[in-house]
Amino acid sequence: MTGLFTPDAVATTLERVRAATPLVHNITNIVAANSTANALLALGASPAMVDAEEEVEPFAAIAAALVVNIGTVTAPQAAAIARATRAARAAGTPWILDPVAVGALAFRARVALDSLAHAPRAIRGNASEILALAHLHGGNAAPPPAGRGVDSLETAEQALSAARGLARATGACVVISGATDHITDGRRVATVANGHPMMTRVTGLGCTATALAGACLAVEPDAMAACAHAMVLIGLAGERAARHAAGPGSLQVGLLDQLHHLTRHAVTHEARIAIIAD
Amino acid sequence: MTGLFTPDAVATTLERVRAATPLVHNITNIVAANSTANALLALGASPAMVDAEEEVEPFAAIAAALVVNIGTVTAPQAAAIARATRAARAAGTPWILDPVAVGALAFRARVALDSLAHAPRAIRGNASEILALAHLHGGNAAPPPAGRGVDSLETAEQALSAARGLARATGACVVISGATDHITDGRRVATVANGHPMMTRVTGLGCTATALAGACLAVEPDAMAACAHAMVLIGLAGERAARHAAGPGSLQVGLLDQLHHLTRHAVTHEARIAIIAD
Amino acid sequence: MTGLFTPDAVATTLERVRAATPLVHNITNIVAANSTANALLALGASPAMVDAEEEVEPFAAIAAALVVNIGTVTAPQAAAIARATRAARAAGTPWILDPVAVGALAFRARVALDSLAHAPRAIRGNASEILALAHLHGGNAAPPPAGRGVDSLETAEQALSAARGLARATGACVVISGATDHITDGRRVATVANGHPMMTRVTGLGCTATALAGACLAVEPDAMAACAHAMVLIGLAGERAARHAAGPGSLQVGLLDQLHHLTRHAVTHEARIAIIAD
Repeated sequence: MTGLFTPDAVATTLERVRAATPLVHNITNIVAANSTANALLALGASPAMVDAEEEVEPFAAIAAALVVNIGTVTAPQAAAIARATRAARAAGTPWILDPVAVGALAFRARVALDSLAHAPRAIRGNASEILALAHLHGGNAAPPPAGRGVDSLETAEQALSAARGLARATGACVVISGATDHITDGRRVATVANGHPMMTRVTGLGCTATALAGACLAVEPDAMAACAHAMVLIGLAGERAARHAAGPGSLQVGLLDQLHHLTRHAVTHEARIAIIAD
Repeated sequence: MTGLFTPDAVATTLERVRAATPLVHNITNIVAANSTANALLALGASPAMVDAEEEVEPFAAIAAALVVNIGTVTAPQAAAIARATRAARAAGTPWILDPVAVGALAFRARVALDSLAHAPRAIRGNASEILALAHLHGGNAAPPPAGRGVDSLETAEQALSAARGLARATGACVVISGATDHITDGRRVATVANGHPMMTRVTGLGCTATALAGACLAVEPDAMAACAHAMVLIGLAGERAARHAAGPGSLQVGLLDQLHHLTRHAVTHEARIAIIAD
Repeated sequence: MTGLFTPDAVATTLERVRAATPLVHNITNIVAANSTANALLALGASPAMVDAEEEVEPFAAIAAALVVNIGTVTAPQAAAIARATRAARAAGTPWILDPVAVGALAFRARVALDSLAHAPRAIRGNASEILALAHLHGGNAAPPPAGRGVDSLETAEQALSAARGLARATGACVVISGATDHITDGRRVATVANGHPMMTRVTGLGCTATALAGACLAVEPDAMAACAHAMVLIGLAGERAARHAAGPGSLQVGLLDQLHHLTRHAVTHEARIAIIAD
């Protein structure tokens, strides 16, 4: 299985996305809606942001993947998430959860936990979010210091044990974003070391990583490989953009340019992906 | 009448927008709200995004034009659209409909069809959307393959016959966006060949075209001319931006810069507008 | 007290924001959500956009500052604003109101006026918005010509008298944005002359100024100084960006780059801040 966690495999997933232009259904927040749609287009996928309760069921069923992000969740959107995730599961549409700031607020914690009953294929968050979700799923209170919104006060390494447990308990692959990303299905662990520190100064890049993982889930049946590949693709686009960026504004723009131009050659030479437990 | 479909007439509309800075009322989606507001400002208009049910009636009445986009329509926004379009018609405010992904989802199809009763001055979509709306308005099911969200699987040419019928049935000018845009009032047909293929990799540029058409409707009483002029202006800004853009991120930014700097000279020398049926 | 209104004091506030990375809770509009989050990150703060009625009370209590912007207010968001501002007051979280287009529409006027009962630390608007809010707060109708959305048809100077009255009546510091910004607590008046005319062609920069003022309120207890410092910081970033910008699209991007790179040296040499009444 380790052949899935190689630069070559990442390049193949990129080519599959471009060939299939998968329709990616996003239920997302008002901050990242534009930038994630643009990132999906730049990668080669076909994004659609649909979150009306009246529309999500049929759309999740026809989509190639569903991305659920609770960054600005409201009660109507929570109802839509419940319907969409149930419909995705019934239709066999792979879906991924981004539990933004889940440890800070009880309402979104409830939304995230309820959604786990509908069998997400993957979950992506920073270390604080994954730690909080794992604790909540285990019936415990989220650990402090979860009150810092989307900032992660833990390192990815510290959260890895919690992530493995969450993956085993839910059946979802779990991604912990950080300077080095960790991706686990509960048994295997892969790491991705692409990216650039300035990416933390651009809003919504975590949400974008989740959305790209949705596109990869549409073409790669091994969810852990799909997620790891997506983390390489956004990290690589970000580090290439950072070489020319004058600051975080330019980085946000350049990342889209780089995603659009990523080649098999660039991916195979610059991907930093490894499997550390198999 | 053909004098309306000339590069000179486009330049005159641009100058009128800049002189009048028309207040353009937008009821739009969460993806394109920022980019369409910026495009209206860059063109020289004054955008306002107002979609609360409590606010749309007085605002549609004082606005110079109303733009209705159903890209992320919800039940409350649908109620606001019903109120706003009725108020616009009563006040004589010209309004334009962007039936985003109308063929894919029954809820938004209902919202779009209901709005047609309030006499839009124009409708702009891609070929799939116009085909779907025409079929739905005729009492038929939307044709497959409408399930691809905002992607257009048809060419503008194929949808022209449906567009002419829709225009005659509704009294609205109909714009079919594509590599070559087609604009018809049911009798006349104009084409616009400005634009660049990379524009399809930037989210919300269809929505932006509709918003710019709203600004032009505020200053040009011939709706078909107003729409054709708007398609030239966005296409020209896009193709000029594409000369310098490193990818779709840069293109989105450069398009705003170019809209801001468009001159009569550039428009008269580079507009590719023609009338093919009069 | 005049030492607070010096380039040195602005640089100190900037350094304090970067050292504290204050969590800034935003209840804002769909147009400016992305750009204000990015501006807060570029400055060095930690933004979170949270506007669900179920979430705003605990979040306003743990945040270092709250920013309330009524640009696309709806009934559910109005309910959230009422809860959040009450909770902020109770918790001692400083909060700032951006009364976008308050003179044009009765619904948002009611929302803005009701919020004033919860003791905002500051209010920022253009001259038309401040004039309208002052009139409404005094029990009068908003003056014409308030019907132009976010455009300001008055000059900051004309609105100063109304702003002083509003500040005295509410206890909030009042900022009138314009070519020269005026900031008053009812007694003192400061001016900030940084900025660039092209900033008026970028959507949401007023909203961004308000959000940055929120970040400064989190670290500077003198609300009038915090607001004046924020106006310097955004104005300076904007004028530095304008030197290299090809148009309003580039300006929006460059402003974020410049915010990220602002130094004590740049601020102390280029801030144009003065106190004109003490």
